[in-house]
Amino acid sequence: MNDIDIEGLKGIANQLRIHSINATTAAGSGHPTSCCSAADIVAALFFGHMRYDPKNPHYYNNDRFILSKGHAAPLLYAAWAETGLFPTEDLLKLRQLGSDLEGHPTPRLPFVDVATGSLGQGLSVGVGMALCARLDNLDYRTYVLLGDGECAEGSVWEAASLAGIYRLNNLVAVVDVNRLGQSQPTAFEHNLDIYKHRFEAFGWRTEEIDGHDIEEIVEVLAAAGLGTQPLVILAKTLKGGGVSFLQDKDGWHGRALTKEESARALAELQPSARSGIGSPIPQPAQLPAPNNEAPGSYPPLDFKMGDSVATREAYGIALARIGETDQRIVALDGDTKNSTYSDKFYKKFPNRFTECFIAEQNMVGTATGFGSRGKVPFVSTFACFFTRAFDQIRVAGISMANLKLVGSHVGVSIGEDGPSQMGLEDLAMMRSVAGSVVLYPSDAVSTGKLVEQMAAHKGICYLRTSRPKTLVIYDNGEQFPIGGAKVVRQSTGDKLTVVAAGVTLFEALKAADELKNAGTGITVIDAYSIKPLAKETIREAAQKTNNVIITVEDHYSQGGLGDAVAGELSAEGVKVHKLAVSELPHSGKAEELLAKYGIDAAAIVTKVKELL
Amino acid sequence: MNDIDIEGLKGIANQLRIHSINATTAAGSGHPTSCCSAADIVAALFFGHMRYDPKNPHYYNNDRFILSKGHAAPLLYAAWAETGLFPTEDLLKLRQLGSDLEGHPTPRLPFVDVATGSLGQGLSVGVGMALCARLDNLDYRTYVLLGDGECAEGSVWEAASLAGIYRLNNLVAVVDVNRLGQSQPTAFEHNLDIYKHRFEAFGWRTEEIDGHDIEEIVEVLAAAGLGTQPLVILAKTLKGGGVSFLQDKDGWHGRALTKEESARALAELQPSARSGIGSPIPQPAQLPAPNNEAPGSYPPLDFKMGDSVATREAYGIALARIGETDQRIVALDGDTKNSTYSDKFYKKFPNRFTECFIAEQNMVGTATGFGSRGKVPFVSTFACFFTRAFDQIRVAGISMANLKLVGSHVGVSIGEDGPSQMGLEDLAMMRSVAGSVVLYPSDAVSTGKLVEQMAAHKGICYLRTSRPKTLVIYDNGEQFPIGGAKVVRQSTGDKLTVVAAGVTLFEALKAADELKNAGTGITVIDAYSIKPLAKETIREAAQKTNNVIITVEDHYSQGGLGDAVAGELSAEGVKVHKLAVSELPHSGKAEELLAKYGIDAAAIVTKVKELL
Repeated sequence: MNDIDIEGLKGIANQLRIHSINATTAAGSGHPTSCCSAADIVAALFFGHMRYDPKNPHYYNNDRFILSKGHAAPLLYAAWAETGLFPTEDLLKLRQLGSDLEGHPTPRLPFVDVATGSLGQGLSVGVGMALCARLDNLDYRTYVLLGDGECAEGSVWEAASLAGIYRLNNLVAVVDVNRLGQSQPTAFEHNLDIYKHRFEAFGWRTEEIDGHDIEEIVEVLAAAGLGTQPLVILAKTLKGGGVSFLQDKDGWHGRALTKEESARALAELQPSARSGIGSPIPQPAQLPAPNNEAPGSYPPLDFKMGDSVATREAYGIALARIGETDQRIVALDGDTKNSTYSDKFYKKFPNRFTECFIAEQNMVGTATGFGSRGKVPFVSTFACFFTRAFDQIRVAGISMANLKLVGSHVGVSIGEDGPSQMGLEDLAMMRSVAGSVVLYPSDAVSTGKLVEQMAAHKGICYLRTSRPKTLVIYDNGEQFPIGGAKVVRQSTGDKLTVVAAGVTLFEALKAADELKNAGTGITVIDAYSIKPLAKETIREAAQKTNNVIITVEDHYSQGGLGDAVAGELSAEGVKVHKLAVSELPHSGKAEELLAKYGIDAAAIVTKVKELL
Repeated sequence: MNDIDIEGLKGIANQLRIHSINATTAAGSGHPTSCCSAADIVAALFFGHMRYDPKNPHYYNNDRFILSKGHAAPLLYAAWAETGLFPTEDLLKLRQLGSDLEGHPTPRLPFVDVATGSLGQGLSVGVGMALCARLDNLDYRTYVLLGDGECAEGSVWEAASLAGIYRLNNLVAVVDVNRLGQSQPTAFEHNLDIYKHRFEAFGWRTEEIDGHDIEEIVEVLAAAGLGTQPLVILAKTLKGGGVSFLQDKDGWHGRALTKEESARALAELQPSARSGIGSPIPQPAQLPAPNNEAPGSYPPLDFKMGDSVATREAYGIALARIGETDQRIVALDGDTKNSTYSDKFYKKFPNRFTECFIAEQNMVGTATGFGSRGKVPFVSTFACFFTRAFDQIRVAGISMANLKLVGSHVGVSIGEDGPSQMGLEDLAMMRSVAGSVVLYPSDAVSTGKLVEQMAAHKGICYLRTSRPKTLVIYDNGEQFPIGGAKVVRQSTGDKLTVVAAGVTLFEALKAADELKNAGTGITVIDAYSIKPLAKETIREAAQKTNNVIITVEDHYSQGGLGDAVAGELSAEGVKVHKLAVSELPHSGKAEELLAKYGIDAAAIVTKVKELL
């Protein structure tokens, strides 16, 4: 720290405060006081401590910075403007439709890896980055700036626990303990010892500091990376710190200053220009780049038509297979790897597998971190348990993250374990995520091919796998593009079209056989791509069958396959009749439940007869 | 503890093991080893310590027991059978369609307050019950049995933190630390000190015991309720404890024993009958019953047509109003009360309000706990942050819980804060919950009336409120039944029907005015009840307008209003055209965003013209 210009940092901290106040006043909204409490910390990180190339924010060995308290966005924007990445005048376009300096950070900006703004998520992403640095033999560190209020979120403690377990000494959390939440003081106000005891119990090294004392900040940062534990710096700060009439006062959360208030505040702040800092930004080490290239091809699939293989097992087989040639693939699971079959990957590539224990929020956040570093993370658990991480998935959508989610044990066809273990709302959830792809294969071959498609597609993909074994019905050479569908049964004179996916495809085929014997032909479509839906294929089939469709799904009737088909095709006059689970199901045998909830072959036959 | 029959408890513990093994072997599936580890704890709780009337599991001052590790369901069922509540022979019907002894506990059983099976949720419910006991001046205690694996869930630490903050000394957690998860050992195996340090840092009193030593269990339980802190008992146990070839061995999770294995196991277990226990079950104190009666009526609404009031503010006004006469109403918020306007209730009834800080999972679980004790809990936060608690909401659906969720700040109409703060998937999420009611009012009067309806309806209700001020368009006397809709504009000769809700209703009315001036009449419907949907009303209107509908919603195009209308009416040949947010939105002014994403009056006019 000898060569760090402390006075220069003090000046730039005030410059960041001034930018934050000016930008929010210009916008007429925002959180200037939440910026002011963290200004000294951010100044010390960006202009004295972190090693990065400010001209190339994506450089693979740059230290990473995650603003978990995303509402302090103007402070982050100010810091990057001061590095010279873009003109400081642009800061005044904050929150305008024409500017990517949005209310909360998103990766529309080149220096933002992941969106923040839903509190308590940044540390999980940091865990993923820190694990990825270790995997890639890079020495960048990951810094996460949290607010004290968000430390009430359990996801923070899931992340803290995993960081402690894996001894991530390349991860540094800084908690800006400014004492004041949105509507009242936090539970622990300035009692830093409570945070200290918590982080220590979760396996962290802790430091308590005055978050407005640049010298102290610089000093504890200098000890980052020492020892074998992650480090948390607990910084006592004042919300609005640096401005007498704002600091440590309730009632200023999320309020921009008026022009008059702003002028008063600015008069109190002595800035110095970036050029006035006597020490340069430390540069990252030049280390070999990680191998994040997509391979040209994958080893061929090797399933046998007529065999019985659960799609969840086919997933495990396929993932282990593509992992051989695709070094980007990493896998994560939450103590269900022997049920989701991700253990097949784990056994082959243990160093590319992260056991996340029973903590799905952090698992998804950690995977988002891997994805932001060029990996292709596949995350598996029971489909229903992804509901636990819906907010992380939602925010991954805003992050435009490269994230692959695989939910097993869907629907009533899991049988005896009962409704708490049945994924019955996962299609509704995953369809509603911005930019998502939602896939639901019925057999092993389509599963294997869709796993390849997921690896190739940049973005959030969800694969829905089933518990029961199902027949392999496709040839290993068959193609399954995202957005496609397979017409698996069709004859001239078919009376209507049944659209199914997963286990209900086999019920539809049984129904088709039975109806054929009775002289009635029906078209059967495997809608393996729920989003995007193969609208053209389904419409064409429907047009040949009097514009009548029956959808059958092992999912609740809201937001799933039936709604997707109706939502896409009703405008064109197609009549969509839904068969789906329409009440809270019970434990029982899979086949009993398919019958009881009206989604088996018999129910399809009955519905067809009713409509003809 | 002098009068507790220790030897009798040892015998009954083995009897519970025997029942658990027999039941799972008969079912051919289940988790017998997870039952065996906790058998001594459950025996001591149910037959020596807890105060309750076994003939009347719902009695308001019975001690409560929550099996957070729900996969040990057979153990719970065995305990209640042994109290005499139902014949022990019924235990062999475990997991059958005809029996409510399901794979995981649900409140279909009279002795189960809330469903469990999705791990890490029980302690939050326990916090709600403990807070409720305090509110109702009852001295029952709440006992929550957790597994060690589920302590990785952040929701456990959210609950632990709140229990510590509110010093819930009527809450007792027991952690069955059996060292083995589903797919591998837990992170901390038998290192009880790690759990001890964590709970202590979260404000709990801790005790470490041998969980197979009945004497020790009874002794620490005797000290429950002493002091001012919640108590956690950390019990070192063996998975499969009591059976030599099962205990502490990996690979037995979720496996029923074969008949032969079962016979070997039973030969090792010396049971004694319930009647052989020398000490009776302690009885609860007779205290005055809480006032959980619904009032006959509520004070009248007092909004003025033509005023501008945000529906989020109308919610706060309405809740404070019905709270005056309805003692069942309690409210919870997660540090957003000044934005959701639940602070209006807080200011009037501070003792019936729980500040949950920024921890939405625990907030929903705590509310479920209140609901299970006869209260009507209203939980508010930004709509998007309910995604954080989707798993808790999903399980509340399985619990058939009486739970009222109120999500504010929906859609792009929140403006500058950007996508991380916009509820754009909440309709999809809430529609997919079993048995849910989903409401989306446009003005203050409908909001107020719907708050009354929510209080009267037993079950999960979701109210979607908006940030912008909107015109009061209904008279205070207007009725808004659940499942209804209002035809707000209709003339003979209307060309099509626009179905809207919330802020888009006003855009539809503007569009109708503009089109009327141009000579085109359209019908406009306020679909304030999204689920159940007013199918008849909408169909009737559609039939008068050529069966053509346009839906307009400030929500993603998946799973919301448009899918709901199409899903219900497409089968009848109604053509539904959806206007909805179809890409990741940006920060900007509300009106700019409504225009950019095609859900404002101009977009409606354009769509109408395109269709005519």
